[in-house]
Amino acid sequence: MIHGDTIVALATPAGAGAIAIIRLSGPKAFQIADKVFESVSDKSLLNQATHTVHLGYIKEDSRTLDQVLATLFKNPTSYTGEDVVEFSCHGSPFIQQELIKLLLNRGARMAKPGEFTLRAFTNGKMDLSQAEAVADLIASDSEAAHQVAIQQMRGGFTNQIAKFRQELLDFASLIELELDFAEEDVAFADREAFEKLIIELQDVLKKLIDSFAIGNVIKNGIPVAIVGQPNVGKSTLLNAILNEDRAIVSEIAGTTRDTIEDEISIGGLNFRFIDTAGIRDTVDAVESIGIKKTFEKIAQAKVVIVMQEAARIWSQKEAYAQDVAKLVHKNPLKPMLLVANKADLINKDDAKALGIFIQEVAQNHPKCSTLLLSAKSGMGVQKLQDKLLDFVNTGALKNDQSIVTNSRHYDALTKALEEIIKVRQGIDAQLSGDLLAIDLRQALYHLGEITGEITNDELLGNIFANFCIGK
Amino acid sequence: MIHGDTIVALATPAGAGAIAIIRLSGPKAFQIADKVFESVSDKSLLNQATHTVHLGYIKEDSRTLDQVLATLFKNPTSYTGEDVVEFSCHGSPFIQQELIKLLLNRGARMAKPGEFTLRAFTNGKMDLSQAEAVADLIASDSEAAHQVAIQQMRGGFTNQIAKFRQELLDFASLIELELDFAEEDVAFADREAFEKLIIELQDVLKKLIDSFAIGNVIKNGIPVAIVGQPNVGKSTLLNAILNEDRAIVSEIAGTTRDTIEDEISIGGLNFRFIDTAGIRDTVDAVESIGIKKTFEKIAQAKVVIVMQEAARIWSQKEAYAQDVAKLVHKNPLKPMLLVANKADLINKDDAKALGIFIQEVAQNHPKCSTLLLSAKSGMGVQKLQDKLLDFVNTGALKNDQSIVTNSRHYDALTKALEEIIKVRQGIDAQLSGDLLAIDLRQALYHLGEITGEITNDELLGNIFANFCIGK
Repeated sequence: MIHGDTIVALATPAGAGAIAIIRLSGPKAFQIADKVFESVSDKSLLNQATHTVHLGYIKEDSRTLDQVLATLFKNPTSYTGEDVVEFSCHGSPFIQQELIKLLLNRGARMAKPGEFTLRAFTNGKMDLSQAEAVADLIASDSEAAHQVAIQQMRGGFTNQIAKFRQELLDFASLIELELDFAEEDVAFADREAFEKLIIELQDVLKKLIDSFAIGNVIKNGIPVAIVGQPNVGKSTLLNAILNEDRAIVSEIAGTTRDTIEDEISIGGLNFRFIDTAGIRDTVDAVESIGIKKTFEKIAQAKVVIVMQEAARIWSQKEAYAQDVAKLVHKNPLKPMLLVANKADLINKDDAKALGIFIQEVAQNHPKCSTLLLSAKSGMGVQKLQDKLLDFVNTGALKNDQSIVTNSRHYDALTKALEEIIKVRQGIDAQLSGDLLAIDLRQALYHLGEITGEITNDELLGNIFANFCIGK
Repeated sequence: MIHGDTIVALATPAGAGAIAIIRLSGPKAFQIADKVFESVSDKSLLNQATHTVHLGYIKEDSRTLDQVLATLFKNPTSYTGEDVVEFSCHGSPFIQQELIKLLLNRGARMAKPGEFTLRAFTNGKMDLSQAEAVADLIASDSEAAHQVAIQQMRGGFTNQIAKFRQELLDFASLIELELDFAEEDVAFADREAFEKLIIELQDVLKKLIDSFAIGNVIKNGIPVAIVGQPNVGKSTLLNAILNEDRAIVSEIAGTTRDTIEDEISIGGLNFRFIDTAGIRDTVDAVESIGIKKTFEKIAQAKVVIVMQEAARIWSQKEAYAQDVAKLVHKNPLKPMLLVANKADLINKDDAKALGIFIQEVAQNHPKCSTLLLSAKSGMGVQKLQDKLLDFVNTGALKNDQSIVTNSRHYDALTKALEEIIKVRQGIDAQLSGDLLAIDLRQALYHLGEITGEITNDELLGNIFANFCIGK
């Protein structure tokens, strides 16, 4: 990774819009920008203050490419910590391309994915976990994912980790000092305070590691398979859930929902609904493939909603019970929700009896819950959302606890905990300082990996390759 | 249209990216922004200079939504001429939506399409044709369309029109003055100078009106039907044309070209290629529908490329001649290009004879041209591009002449010219001032429509409804 050069990329989403931003960062950002920019007031960009905006034209020789605003950020008070120029141009893809081409011709080079944020990290503008949080923040599409990402971007649990690491480091120094005076048998490190710190850290690490279960759910959403034939009301149900959300969201995003294979936010968490067909035995080859796929999708899901029309269940009780039994048999540990839709279309007495019947079907199986609803009228839709949330352990979320969503952090925390446990056992067994120091150094290493105090090119390459270009 | 309120919209393209911009404009822009923005240096946005950028957090009560940059533009030195705040936030669709919702809750309202530019127009920041050019600029996807739009945005031919209109207005005043002194038979207006102006204006209007033919082509692209069976090499040909373009374009845009129904820029103009199947008579119902569609698409095209493999033409000469004759018979006035592809796969002598044969086939028909090429090796591809450009009269484009691309302008120019011709005839017939004044006023009206000096709510509504939201 060379930092001597000046990089350029489109920073706004691809496509046409009112405006787009092309970002330059590097030692020659101002020089390159000044070559292509002609201020309306004939000022040179080179003499302007940081954090100021200037109106002018982009010129390629005699040709005028666009009227733009140039915003200047002088190092170190920029995102990357380098000199940065952001051109705000008209948002046509043609202009975006031409402007980038022009800046490339004037000495910039195309930025690699995440290269702006990588520079911010190497210039000390943020630690590694904060850099990772930037990518998570951009990818976040639910309230919960967003909150965790922004907490992390502002320091989050890594501040705590960094503090512990510093204290550990102090003890490690003292213990290593003891080694230098090994023959004199002095103990610089207060073993009692040290053990207290280790116990405290062990507790924190354990909680963070445990939070990854919910963190993973927050980040990746919860896959829910809906088993049910076409017209059973699957799309209507999802639209009913969506409409619970404030209407403004769909107005802004222009949301239209034609497919049922989609993500819907419930209680700030993303549920990813997967449409599947029925599960009846068949001799037809095409249908058999469909059934096989249904079972594959059920296997991927965390929860399965089995949806059937109330009237249909009522008229074919035995077949229904068999279908459910078959599903449960193949997926004995999978949480299931038996839903009788269009329950408002059968009379009240039948509905009552039907409710009891489905509960009986469910009773024979573990992890099975039931619900009568009408997706069309909205009856029972709120209850269904509550039940879906029940399937997820949202305890950590509610308690505003630090949550680990990144599997790299999870990995490093787990390894650090293993070493810390060894250190604790060592203290209990009154191990000598030199033996303690080995495990301690390993723990320090893994904790350092999280914040990026310990790093290497391969690790950085892996992390930033997943960024979008322009960030 | 109420201007007392403060509007908000996403200004960058929809979707995820490194950053997105949410734009506020109106008298309360600063107040609303200050309510949600917490500067890292504890400054209030209300006391800051125009054209400055500030780092801080978006806060909704105790919740932190994002870290953002706030850029301030004080009236009148902003795009709209009002107070404007642009928030540059992380480009997740979730954050975009939440920030807009928050600003709506704090007193802004959602902007209508084009409302920022409408405000710029009503605040005198640009004339109507310049406002229209903004939309054209964003929509422009070829070099020619872009150049015409930016020329227009910087004033373009409407500066000239406005100048003429002012001179006409002066004469109109003098002539109306004569009417006040009608009984004294004085002539304030120099008839000779007036006629000179009218002749000059007539000439300018005529040239502008004529330029609309090419202007329309520039704006909307040139539809080209390619007639040819699958595997005849249509996609290969389009990719060969595309590769002539600098590779960087596809690198930036991530272009992949799977379909042949696509636009390709040749010589700065957009050619829209329309895939069609063969044209052979058939008894098969499905194929018949295909042939009907082929003829429909040919009717829409400005040019038709008839593509066949060289070896196939050579082995079925008579059928080929008949096919071409049938096509020409149904579209006698449509320019056609007979292309023999894979010409490198037959031997040189055959290729020579084939070239002569196709030319003979073409000779029987008007507006028919021929070409031997190899899309795969690139042989003849440049010639094909030249021939396609020949079909378009690009004279005006080459001469750097003002070009009218907007049908509303074309309409107003045409009406103005009609009135100017009447005025000229009136001068020649030595009509009295009161009669001249009537036609003159009409001409002034239509010229004023172009720049927006004459306007009404319906016209404005029509123009700005076609803008994107956020511009």
